[in-house]
Amino acid sequence: MEKLRIGMVGYKFMGKAHSHAYRDLPLFFPNTVHPEMKVICGRDQNGVTVAAKQFGWEEYTTDWKSLLERDDIDLIDINAPSNVHKEITIAAAKAGKHVFCEKPLALTLEDSREMLDLVESAGIKHMVGFNYRFAPAVMLAKKLIEEGRLGEIYHFRAWFLQDWLVDPNFPLAWRLQKEIAGSGSHGDLGAHLIDLSHYLIGDITEVIGMNETFIKERPIPSQMMGLSAKGSDSDKKAEVTVDDATLFLARFANGALGSFEATRFATGHRCTNSFEINGSKGSVIFDFERMNELQVYFTDDKEDVQGFRRVLATDPSHAFAENWWPPGHTIGYEHTFIHEMVELMESFRQDRQPVPNFRDGVKCQEVLEAVDLSIQNRQWIRISDV
Amino acid sequence: MEKLRIGMVGYKFMGKAHSHAYRDLPLFFPNTVHPEMKVICGRDQNGVTVAAKQFGWEEYTTDWKSLLERDDIDLIDINAPSNVHKEITIAAAKAGKHVFCEKPLALTLEDSREMLDLVESAGIKHMVGFNYRFAPAVMLAKKLIEEGRLGEIYHFRAWFLQDWLVDPNFPLAWRLQKEIAGSGSHGDLGAHLIDLSHYLIGDITEVIGMNETFIKERPIPSQMMGLSAKGSDSDKKAEVTVDDATLFLARFANGALGSFEATRFATGHRCTNSFEINGSKGSVIFDFERMNELQVYFTDDKEDVQGFRRVLATDPSHAFAENWWPPGHTIGYEHTFIHEMVELMESFRQDRQPVPNFRDGVKCQEVLEAVDLSIQNRQWIRISDV
Amino acid sequence: MEKLRIGMVGYKFMGKAHSHAYRDLPLFFPNTVHPEMKVICGRDQNGVTVAAKQFGWEEYTTDWKSLLERDDIDLIDINAPSNVHKEITIAAAKAGKHVFCEKPLALTLEDSREMLDLVESAGIKHMVGFNYRFAPAVMLAKKLIEEGRLGEIYHFRAWFLQDWLVDPNFPLAWRLQKEIAGSGSHGDLGAHLIDLSHYLIGDITEVIGMNETFIKERPIPSQMMGLSAKGSDSDKKAEVTVDDATLFLARFANGALGSFEATRFATGHRCTNSFEINGSKGSVIFDFERMNELQVYFTDDKEDVQGFRRVLATDPSHAFAENWWPPGHTIGYEHTFIHEMVELMESFRQDRQPVPNFRDGVKCQEVLEAVDLSIQNRQWIRISDV
Amino acid sequence: MEKLRIGMVGYKFMGKAHSHAYRDLPLFFPNTVHPEMKVICGRDQNGVTVAAKQFGWEEYTTDWKSLLERDDIDLIDINAPSNVHKEITIAAAKAGKHVFCEKPLALTLEDSREMLDLVESAGIKHMVGFNYRFAPAVMLAKKLIEEGRLGEIYHFRAWFLQDWLVDPNFPLAWRLQKEIAGSGSHGDLGAHLIDLSHYLIGDITEVIGMNETFIKERPIPSQMMGLSAKGSDSDKKAEVTVDDATLFLARFANGALGSFEATRFATGHRCTNSFEINGSKGSVIFDFERMNELQVYFTDDKEDVQGFRRVLATDPSHAFAENWWPPGHTIGYEHTFIHEMVELMESFRQDRQPVPNFRDGVKCQEVLEAVDLSIQNRQWIRISDV
Repeated sequence: MEKLRIGMVGYKFMGKAHSHAYRDLPLFFPNTVHPEMKVICGRDQNGVTVAAKQFGWEEYTTDWKSLLERDDIDLIDINAPSNVHKEITIAAAKAGKHVFCEKPLALTLEDSREMLDLVESAGIKHMVGFNYRFAPAVMLAKKLIEEGRLGEIYHFRAWFLQDWLVDPNFPLAWRLQKEIAGSGSHGDLGAHLIDLSHYLIGDITEVIGMNETFIKERPIPSQMMGLSAKGSDSDKKAEVTVDDATLFLARFANGALGSFEATRFATGHRCTNSFEINGSKGSVIFDFERMNELQVYFTDDKEDVQGFRRVLATDPSHAFAENWWPPGHTIGYEHTFIHEMVELMESFRQDRQPVPNFRDGVKCQEVLEAVDLSIQNRQWIRISDV
Repeated sequence: MEKLRIGMVGYKFMGKAHSHAYRDLPLFFPNTVHPEMKVICGRDQNGVTVAAKQFGWEEYTTDWKSLLERDDIDLIDINAPSNVHKEITIAAAKAGKHVFCEKPLALTLEDSREMLDLVESAGIKHMVGFNYRFAPAVMLAKKLIEEGRLGEIYHFRAWFLQDWLVDPNFPLAWRLQKEIAGSGSHGDLGAHLIDLSHYLIGDITEVIGMNETFIKERPIPSQMMGLSAKGSDSDKKAEVTVDDATLFLARFANGALGSFEATRFATGHRCTNSFEINGSKGSVIFDFERMNELQVYFTDDKEDVQGFRRVLATDPSHAFAENWWPPGHTIGYEHTFIHEMVELMESFRQDRQPVPNFRDGVKCQEVLEAVDLSIQNRQWIRISDV
Repeated sequence: MEKLRIGMVGYKFMGKAHSHAYRDLPLFFPNTVHPEMKVICGRDQNGVTVAAKQFGWEEYTTDWKSLLERDDIDLIDINAPSNVHKEITIAAAKAGKHVFCEKPLALTLEDSREMLDLVESAGIKHMVGFNYRFAPAVMLAKKLIEEGRLGEIYHFRAWFLQDWLVDPNFPLAWRLQKEIAGSGSHGDLGAHLIDLSHYLIGDITEVIGMNETFIKERPIPSQMMGLSAKGSDSDKKAEVTVDDATLFLARFANGALGSFEATRFATGHRCTNSFEINGSKGSVIFDFERMNELQVYFTDDKEDVQGFRRVLATDPSHAFAENWWPPGHTIGYEHTFIHEMVELMESFRQDRQPVPNFRDGVKCQEVLEAVDLSIQNRQWIRISDV
Repeated sequence: MEKLRIGMVGYKFMGKAHSHAYRDLPLFFPNTVHPEMKVICGRDQNGVTVAAKQFGWEEYTTDWKSLLERDDIDLIDINAPSNVHKEITIAAAKAGKHVFCEKPLALTLEDSREMLDLVESAGIKHMVGFNYRFAPAVMLAKKLIEEGRLGEIYHFRAWFLQDWLVDPNFPLAWRLQKEIAGSGSHGDLGAHLIDLSHYLIGDITEVIGMNETFIKERPIPSQMMGLSAKGSDSDKKAEVTVDDATLFLARFANGALGSFEATRFATGHRCTNSFEINGSKGSVIFDFERMNELQVYFTDDKEDVQGFRRVLATDPSHAFAENWWPPGHTIGYEHTFIHEMVELMESFRQDRQPVPNFRDGVKCQEVLEAVDLSIQNRQWIRISDV
């Protein structure tokens, strides 16, 4: 297999990021399967026409179902709003198309489990868009843990801090509406932290959380935009139906303690997706705002020079780095998507499931739901009970 | 009143820190009451003899009760291990002596409340040793909040990270024994975070926590030391009876969400006593390992130059700074104690209660106990219920 | 004009960076002229064949002169080694082709002046590849200076620190041979600093420098690579004929003092291209290893919160940022080239000379040569005297 | 010898710092000779009376010559303005008193050489106040170099950046008058950098510099203060006769290249006394504003975790650290003076010359003068020629 022919549903923030990844992948990673950008799909005729041209897709359509009927499409890339993930995934699986789906898989755990069952029984390849796994600095953390260089893990603490909702007049974008987004900071940001914890530490056994919606009502926007929304038609406000912030404590199966925080009210933090891991032999600290760096500490350093090292993950020894630039030349946010798509391509070249896939998506959703339950019930919830 | 005559009980880590503070205070703060270092008391005759000479006390004794009978002592400074705080405080209060007591006030909330009742009915001055309030950078955070420059507070997250217990052969020091220390990381480190949150944010209304003792048994030490212990007589081990790490979530009366973590297993962190506060108008970040700095962010900065500022709290506009050195010349850990003792002296000069006092000590202990209860009961505990 | 048809000479490090820029430009900057990747040229038939396919060029050739005879090529992009820049530029200008030339323009000041004369008399557009001007954080520094927000400028200090030559067995790559590269760290790294100083501060009036070649001989490489070289045929060594490090002091026409350092022996620095500017009203600090950030200080901040701010230049108010991702999502090294090519495209759309162009290239070379003269003569050299 | 009886001349900024050091030394370093604070001397009767009481001196006087006639004084500590260092030193040496003299030793190289000759022929102990050598992080750098852990040294770059003169209305303090201070930023700040380079790297062989006085005239102050001056009697201004900034390049005897910058116009830098050293095996970076930290890099770290480590020099393995607090508890600026005085005391206990002494003071002054000459002559000056 040399080419993977792609039909994509969605053309906003994630649509742009995925298109870019497909477009650049062969330049930097010529030795894997190459994506072919066949058709892009969106509900708005004008919008999708422009996007198709700008992003470099061969064709466009406003009817996502038409993608499923074509012989020249191998994989459906779903990055439309979360409330349509399920319907499209199910239809794609039934049509025998492989599926890449943005996170979160679905609005509910039940839906995501149904999706997993279906893609597994359909025998297709399925991947979920936890792109932060693919930052080379995060992959270095993973490598250090897997090689035992951090020893036994005691602590995982993670926070995803943004501040775009601090302005009370920021309008009621779709991400603030439960029926479309499913969840607020928890499902949007917390989901990434949970997936990173699964990737780096392992299974979570129990959780207890709390959340808050600091600003209860917001202006109704006149126009939806990529990430958010703009303007306001009138003075009317409507209720914010998702969480502004969700925090939770967790225990991992390996005995580690976890602390998670996702918020859109962390004034001054544009996009601090950060974690720290403490083990018996060492520690690591990651912050996405400096995504090329990993702070690393080892207990067996000579006693007079112990300290956190700032490792720039751009050396030949680091994941993917040799495909980019010489050491010290950093890469950006969008490259996490290129690496993600390299994994997708490699799964076809090697004929295996890509990772992370829908199993990881469901695992993430289990924790999301357990946290929500723990908030409703005001008590610890075991993951095995959801 | 020009002099405050002091009798001190304890001569280890805190004894040294307090002695230094008394000794240096008149040099840097000549315009307040001056402490007079009358008598130091310790159980070990040799130890206290050496300490008296080294620290600069006029006399020493091994009998703390003798301090209470002397007319030439105004205040008892208690920095012996936590399990004797109560007895000494009560005796001192009955003898009409003013009391400075290191944190935590007592091993239990009940004891600390009894102590508070007694010092209040005795009409003496009472202070508790939450020294971190007195770092100028922390005081700057307080000032910004009080002047409304951070706006409404949404988030308080704090962690006190140390790593001196990561070595499983570190011996069973008194701080690891519940009957002497009362608590582990929670009472030792978490207590400071709780007090800082009271100082900066206000009352906590409810909490839920978790804790862990990662290393269950440790070698029995041959010799007790200031902070900890050294060596080991034999191969014998004994049980660690306090927590290695305690985390909890909290809600504040003003609506803010809190996250707290205290651990002695944060590999690579010698003494990271750190907090971040996010408000509607700004944020601050503090880390004790860089104790002269406060990171500050304001939403009303010009839109193209928004970012966290690294403020070095050594300018004339910063608390206590003019008594030290020119701007940019940093101070150290021990100066927090000097500032603390300045507050103690000022309380005599102005004839008022010092702050923080036993009320703050009890408030801290309420939260400590509520967290412990929440761990036992696996559910949220309201502070008003303990 | 909607399309600019490009023929490119060179396909190694810079060839890859330019190809990527042309390829991605229409995706992120759809509203300017679009580059058309017509022909790529290289001396090695196999190499250029692979590169053409990987980078996405329509055709390839090993004969750069053939590009000049074609009607369907508007601009020649020259990123071959420095010793062929002049010949190709002159031929291109004579053929009426526009020219983009990587820095340094030529091996000598005299050559670069000849090139400038020719492109100006030919009436073509000409640009030189000082890509670091196009980092949004650098452009923010420029904006602050131009708007007077830093006041009168007192200091410019800059250093470009790399460490790839610290290993004495690193082979004698073409960049270490004077007849091909013209210069070592001075022309390679120092040239960027000089151009940034011209861009940000203005004209330099006089300089004095020193340089050193720490490792005098190196193994002869078996194979040339993008940046450098690999392996070694034998035990033979040959002389390093360029500088490992060059430092110089400078005075600017506006009265500011300058300090410059370029070295490939700064152990631990992969690519620290950094500068600091101090003015009467404020300061800025930039470090390319954290290229999305600019540290900014203003004297008119309130006196209790003065400090350097870490500004992440990813907000809508920052140059180019709205064409990328939401605030806090960083971009990488290669994006400086995309921005550079946007300027190139805009110069065609607006029918003006792009900036920086050959005038800037010559100005840079004047300073490079003045520094070399000052080293030979061991005395200050005025730029107006070279 | 158990006590060293001290007479001190000067009671402003340095007088306070030295007094504090003498006062605290026995508390933290009980096992060396103890200073006895006998007499403090100052020209202003009121000022010295207050200082004596505040700092804890037994007596005071306004006549420094009286100190030399007393039998109960062993050492004269000279921290009066630079223009009186020579006279007092000579008189003290003739009286057989040991001498500690603040830097710079004298206003001219010639004077400092005369002073050195005299103290050596008098057979007394002599020390000069280069306190920054005594920051534990600086001492760690020294240790790493001496143990060969940085390998061969290639680069030393250092800058001492302050900003207290950026305000053009800051008055004409004594430090801005050549006849009293001898020099501006060069002698005040640059002297420290030069001494650090001697301590860490070794002898300098040649230099070339430049300097500038950005603000030529300043208001005449009404009152002199510790560091500077305050207020202004009238609208009158007078000429600033020292340099605001001095930069120079240097070559070291061991082949390393040096770059030095001292300025009081580095807006935003209160006291950035910083250096970086690059060697064949590693590098270090120090910044006095974070004086407890040393950034350390080693080339032999595993290839996937290479990076600068932030070492907090508060571990038991670090110089002086065990005499202070547990790891992670930082010390401040004034502790450099305590360590300095420990060296002074140890030189008496071990009966040897302290280091740094007047030889180091003269060596520093040789470089200061060579730089000044190089500026006057606009050419390189060899140290051996001054």
